[in-house]
Formats: sequence, C-alpha cells, structure tokens
Amino acid sequence: MPHIELDNDGPGLAGLLRYRPETAGPLAELAHVLLHGPSTLSPGERELIAARVSEGNECQFCATAHHAVAHAALGPDPEISAKLAALLEIADRVRESGTAVTGSQVAAARAAGASDLEIHDTVLIAAAFCMYNRYVDGLGTVMPEDPATDFAIHAQHVLAHGYRGPGRQDRDTD
Amino acid sequence: MPHIELDNDGPGLAGLLRYRPETAGPLAELAHVLLHGPSTLSPGERELIAARVSEGNECQFCATAHHAVAHAALGPDPEISAKLAALLEIADRVRESGTAVTGSQVAAARAAGASDLEIHDTVLIAAAFCMYNRYVDGLGTVMPEDPATDFAIHAQHVLAHGYRGPGRQDRDTD
Repeated sequence: MPHIELDNDGPGLAGLLRYRPETAGPLAELAHVLLHGPSTLSPGERELIAARVSEGNECQFCATAHHAVAHAALGPDPEISAKLAALLEIADRVRESGTAVTGSQVAAARAAGASDLEIHDTVLIAAAFCMYNRYVDGLGTVMPEDPATDFAIHAQHVLAHGYRGPGRQDRDTD
Repeated sequence: MPHIELDNDGPGLAGLLRYRPETAGPLAELAHVLLHGPSTLSPGERELIAARVSEGNECQFCATAHHAVAHAALGPDPEISAKLAALLEIADRVRESGTAVTGSQVAAARAAGASDLEIHDTVLIAAAFCMYNRYVDGLGTVMPEDPATDFAIHAQHVLAHGYRGPGRQDRDTD
C-alpha cells in the first residue's frame, strides 16, 4: 500500500502522475525527450541505460518496466556496442554519485565513438532515474497485478508513442 | 572544466540548461512547481529541503545556491518546526534510497501535522535533487567566479520569479 492516499489505483509511477498533474507534466516530458526524442542513441539503447540504473537502485517497478521496453525494442539478447558499454559505465558512476564520474571514463566513451551530446544525455538519463526510482519507492507505490502482461503492453505503447501526454490508461481510444 | 564542451560559460546547472534546451524546459518547470508553485510549505521551507539533500550529496553548486535562497527567504537562523523536521528526516532517507523510507517515518510526519501532499512533495523534492546534484557534478560543471555575490543575486531573482522560463542571465530587461 502506498505511504499516502493517491485516490487512484495506478501502479508505480502511473499512480503518482495521476495524483499530482502539476509535476506529472514536466516528469513525463523529461522522460519523453530523454528516452524517445530525437537522438543518435536508439530508444532501445536509452531504455537499457534507464533499466541498468533502476536495477542498481533496486527499483523493481522501473527496472521491470524499462527492461520490458528495451526487450521489445532490441530483442531478448541485444548486442552491446563498445560505445554503449562505455556509456553504461558512466551511468553506473552517476548512480553512485555525480562526483564519481572521472575524466578518463568520459575520454574512454569518446574514444569508443560517443559524442558530447550522447555523454550528456547518458548522465542526465542516469540522474533522472535516480529521481524516478526514489519517487516510486519513497512513496511505497505498488507493482501492477499482472506485471508480465501489463509491462509488455506498456512497452508496445511506449515504443509507438513515447512518454509524453496522458498515460495509456487514460486514452482508451488511442 | 566541464567534461563536455558546453559552448557557454554558465556555471553549474545554468550552463547545462543552455546547452540542451529540450531538457531545460521540463527541468526548470519541475523545479518551479516544486519549490515556487502553490504549496502549504513556504518557498523557504522547500528550499531548505533542497539544500539539505544537496549538502548530503556533496553537490557544492546546488547546496550553496539553495542555502542562499533559503537564507534570503527565512533569515540566517530559521526556526525548524516539528513538521519540517519530520519532513527533513524523510528527505534524508529518500536521498539514501527510496526503499529506505518507512511507514513509521511517514506516520511521524503526519502526526506532526504534515498533509499527504506535503509528504508527496517532500519525497519528490528530495528525489529531484538526487537528479539535479548528479547532473551538475556528473558533467563536471564549475562554480561561479564570485559565488557569494552571484548566489545572493540569484536568490533574490528566484524569490521574485521562481525557476520557470529563461534564466536571469538571459533576461537583462527583467
């Protein structure tokens, strides 16, 4: 049971977004730009970064949700390029602390082909999931009743539409 | 020197917001709603929560900036109510991990007079500063050249206008 009365039964982040529309707007827009907006990193690669950070933070809701999207985008056993591996290393450090990121890690990512914008977005994706994970767990939100089915449906919706605007649950005609 | 070429000399978060306008929009809007929007917590109380989390994360830029705003709003030695003390305890746990927040902590905040919305906003402010802190430090941004003066001017601007829209530096006629 969540720590506060949400007045809706949405699981995880969905329930929180419905509870507080004023913060839901920028939270959804940020996720949309970072994970689904124009980028030289594919949506699947960016979802893997989000899933990795969420797993490190032991946030079951976010880790399961973003692994499902990465899986839907990249298949069950995606090849990790040297560039993505270097970016995932940076994400791990950001999760620990911003000050843990070193110049040599950034240089290694650049040597593996990462652009400054890709490095920027990796840092901000990792930082943002340190927020989403704490928001979801800090308020004690719940998992969906049927995670496998619900997250698979959600993943298809995200790949088609991203994260902007009202959630899937509110758009029956979508 | 920042880890990436920002093409501007803005310190801390300011340089990052100018570098990537697509993410600057939701990042500024989120801070505005949480710290300056309508709330039964005063802007000064919310700035104290932001400063406390930033200090715990050892983010010099954010801690100095938000302490300056709290100081400008509340004076040098603000009285901490029992409610605010309980909310600061929750913020400390969120900083550590979302899963570290306990039902008894939430009950203690409620017993001290905190509403569900105040508890929600405290968790989200603390979570959001776990993002801003990591973003600012993960990209190796720099402090302003004259922190005492710059943050004092910034604090007055924030108290008058909040965090929405273009930064102070871009609004000479403001």
